[in-house]
Amino acid sequence: MTDAERLDRYAELALHVGANLEPGQDLGIIGLVEHAPLARVLADRAYRGGARYVEVLYTDQHVRRALIEHGPEESLGWTPPWLVDFIEALGERGAALVSISGNPEPELMAGLDGERVGKARTKALAQAHLRNVQERLVNWTIVGYPNRGWAEAAFGEPDVERLWQAVATAVRLDEPDPVAAWSRHIETLVARAYGLNERGFDAIRFRGPGTDLTVGLLRGSRWKTARFQTARGRSHVANLPTEEVYTSPDFRRTAGTVRSTKPLAMFGTVVRELELRFDGGRAIEVTAGTGADVVRAQMASDEHAPFLGEVALVDSASRVGKTGITFMDTLFDENATSHIAYGAGIPDTVEGAGGRSPDELRALGVNHASIHVDFMIGGPEVEVDGLERGGAAVPIIRGDRWQL
Amino acid sequence: MTDAERLDRYAELALHVGANLEPGQDLGIIGLVEHAPLARVLADRAYRGGARYVEVLYTDQHVRRALIEHGPEESLGWTPPWLVDFIEALGERGAALVSISGNPEPELMAGLDGERVGKARTKALAQAHLRNVQERLVNWTIVGYPNRGWAEAAFGEPDVERLWQAVATAVRLDEPDPVAAWSRHIETLVARAYGLNERGFDAIRFRGPGTDLTVGLLRGSRWKTARFQTARGRSHVANLPTEEVYTSPDFRRTAGTVRSTKPLAMFGTVVRELELRFDGGRAIEVTAGTGADVVRAQMASDEHAPFLGEVALVDSASRVGKTGITFMDTLFDENATSHIAYGAGIPDTVEGAGGRSPDELRALGVNHASIHVDFMIGGPEVEVDGLERGGAAVPIIRGDRWQL
Repeated sequence: MTDAERLDRYAELALHVGANLEPGQDLGIIGLVEHAPLARVLADRAYRGGARYVEVLYTDQHVRRALIEHGPEESLGWTPPWLVDFIEALGERGAALVSISGNPEPELMAGLDGERVGKARTKALAQAHLRNVQERLVNWTIVGYPNRGWAEAAFGEPDVERLWQAVATAVRLDEPDPVAAWSRHIETLVARAYGLNERGFDAIRFRGPGTDLTVGLLRGSRWKTARFQTARGRSHVANLPTEEVYTSPDFRRTAGTVRSTKPLAMFGTVVRELELRFDGGRAIEVTAGTGADVVRAQMASDEHAPFLGEVALVDSASRVGKTGITFMDTLFDENATSHIAYGAGIPDTVEGAGGRSPDELRALGVNHASIHVDFMIGGPEVEVDGLERGGAAVPIIRGDRWQL
Repeated sequence: MTDAERLDRYAELALHVGANLEPGQDLGIIGLVEHAPLARVLADRAYRGGARYVEVLYTDQHVRRALIEHGPEESLGWTPPWLVDFIEALGERGAALVSISGNPEPELMAGLDGERVGKARTKALAQAHLRNVQERLVNWTIVGYPNRGWAEAAFGEPDVERLWQAVATAVRLDEPDPVAAWSRHIETLVARAYGLNERGFDAIRFRGPGTDLTVGLLRGSRWKTARFQTARGRSHVANLPTEEVYTSPDFRRTAGTVRSTKPLAMFGTVVRELELRFDGGRAIEVTAGTGADVVRAQMASDEHAPFLGEVALVDSASRVGKTGITFMDTLFDENATSHIAYGAGIPDTVEGAGGRSPDELRALGVNHASIHVDFMIGGPEVEVDGLERGGAAVPIIRGDRWQL
C-alpha cells in the first residue's frame, strides 16, 4: 500500500465509520494548517461520496502563541464571532464534522506565562461546539494526522512511519475489513457498558500509587460508548480510536486524591505528574511536575471547571494500550487507559438530562462548564472498583484486565 | 541578513507601509495554508506593534479543486455565510487587512472543466470584500509570499532565493530605508496622476501587435495611485509593489481589440495570449492560447463582468518591470506594465461616484460587477496615447517610457 493509498483508506474510515457522512450532507473539517494533507483527502473523498459542500476551518497555534506572548490582556478570551458562526451553522445545517488531532508542536507554548496560556481560549467557540454535541446536531468524529512533530513528541525522534503504523493499529486500519472490525469492536464496548449499567454502581473507586479517588455516580448515570446517534438518528463513532466506556458522575461527590499516569498535552503545553485533591466534588489542590499553572488558569476561568464531568474505563485490551506508546495526544492516550475529565459533563449519559439548561443540569448533578479536559489515571498498578449502594466493592479492573 | 530577518523586515513593510496598521486596531490576514510562515510573522509583528486582535483566514485551493472536480453543480457558486461574516466584521470593526499572494500551484486547476472552474467562485465573499474596499472601511494591502511552487512557475525551477531577491527589489526591501523609499516613490506616482488629471483626456488608446484599443474615460475619471485613505482618514498602500496610476473608464465606451502581453495566472489556471474584441464597451469575443473557457465562464457569471472597470498605466521605470521577470502573479505582473481590468470599476476614482448604489454607478458610467480581473497589455511595442476631446492624440508612453 502506498502512502497515498493509506491516507485514502484512513480518510474513508474517518468519513464512513467515524463521522458517517451521509450523501447530500455538508461536511465541516477543523484542523491545524499542518493538517492540510489529511483535510484535502477528506474533502476529496467526501465530494466523491456525494457531500454537498465541504468547508475547512484551519487554525494556527503560532498565531495564538503571538496573541499569548504579545497581545492585550482583554483579547485573550475573545472569540471572533465568525468562528462561532461557523460552528453554529454546522449545527443548523445538520452537517457532519471531522476534527483533526495530532499536534506538530505539542510544547509550542512552553515558557510562556501559564496563566495567559490558560486564559487564551476561544470560549465562545468551545461553547458553540458543546451545544452542537450536547444537542446532538452534528455527526462528528476526531482523528489524528501523523506528522513529524507529533512523532518526535511521542518517540523522541521524527519517525513518522512508526507513528503511522501505531495509529493504523490503534484505529484498526490494519484489518482486512476495518468497517467490520469496528462494528465488532463497538459491540464489545456496548456489552461492557451494558454490564456496568446492570450493576447500577453508586460510585467508582480508583486505587494506585498516589491515587485513592472515589467518584460518585448519579442514579441516572448511564455508561455509554463513543458510538453516538444524532437527534436526527444518524449514528457515528465520535473518536477514532475509541476504547472507553464512560459516564457523567455526580459532580458534587468526588473525593480523595488522584495522580495522572500519562502526560497530558494540551494547548501547546505538556502537563506532567498532575495531582489533584478533591473535596465535595471540587479540585481544591492542583500540583504537577510541569504545566500546573495552565491547569490552574483553566480551572479559574469558569466557576464549574474544577468539577468532574466524566469518568471513563479502559483496560489493557485496548488497541491503543497494546501499542505500548504514549502518544502525547489525548485522543489516543485517553483510549489507552482509564481517565477522568474536569469540566463539562455529558448530559446524554444521564437519564432525563437531555435538552436541559445549564442550571437544570447542575441541579441534577451533571456538571456544566465551557471546558472538558480528560486526563489519564489508569494503568497496571491501578485497581478500579465499583461501589454498591450498600458499600460493597466489586472489582471492575485488576491487573489492567476487565473483571466484570 | 538571515532569512528570518528578511521575513521580519518584509512583514514590517506590509504592516507599516502597506496596511499601515494602527495600534489598538484589529488585523485580518487572508492567505493560503501554504502562506502560514508569513502569516505567522505578520501576526507576531502586529501584536508587538499593539494590534488588538489578529485573525487569519486560511484558504485551501485543493479543497476548492475537489469541489470543482466532484462537487454538485449547485454548490459551485455558494459561499458559506461565516466567510462573509469574517469579511463584513473587518469592515464593521474598521480593521486592517493583509492579503497574501503567491500561488504555490498556479496551474492546479489545469485539466478541469473550465466552465466549472469559472463558476466556482465565492461570489458573496468577493462582494463583501468589494463593499469594504469601495466604502473604504479597511486599510488593506496585498503582498506576495515567495515559495517553491511560485518560483517554479516564474523560473521553471524552484529557486526560492532568486524569487525572494526579485520580490525584495520589487518592493524596495533592498533600500536602506524602505519606508522613506516608498514615500518618495508614491510621490512620483502622485505626480503622474496629477499630470494626467490636468490633461483631462477623453480616452486612452493602446496600439501594438494585436492591439488597437480605445478606452473611453468619464468626465469625472480621476487618475489615482494605490495609496488610499480610509473613510476614517487612515492612509495605506493597497499593493506592495505598486507602480501604476489608474482610473475607472466609461464602461460603455471601450472599442477595438486587445492582446495580453503577459500570461495571467488566476484561480489555478494560466490564461495565455488572451485576445478580446470590444464593442460598445462589452467584450464580445474571447480567444486565448490557454484558459479561454475560464475567462468566458467568468464573464458569463455576471451580466456586467464583460465590461471594463479599470485602465492603468505603467512604464519601464517600474521596479517590477526592471527585474525582467514574469512573476505569474497579477500583483507583480500588473505592476510591470500597463493593464486593464474587466469587471467592477473603482468608484473612488470617479467624481461623485462614492457611496452610490450599483445601479447609480452604472448610470454614471462606472461598471459594477462581482469580479475584477486585471490583465497586462503594455510593453516595449505598445504605444499609449491620451485622446483629447477634439480628437488630438498626445503620447503618454513611447518605447515603454513615460512622455508626459
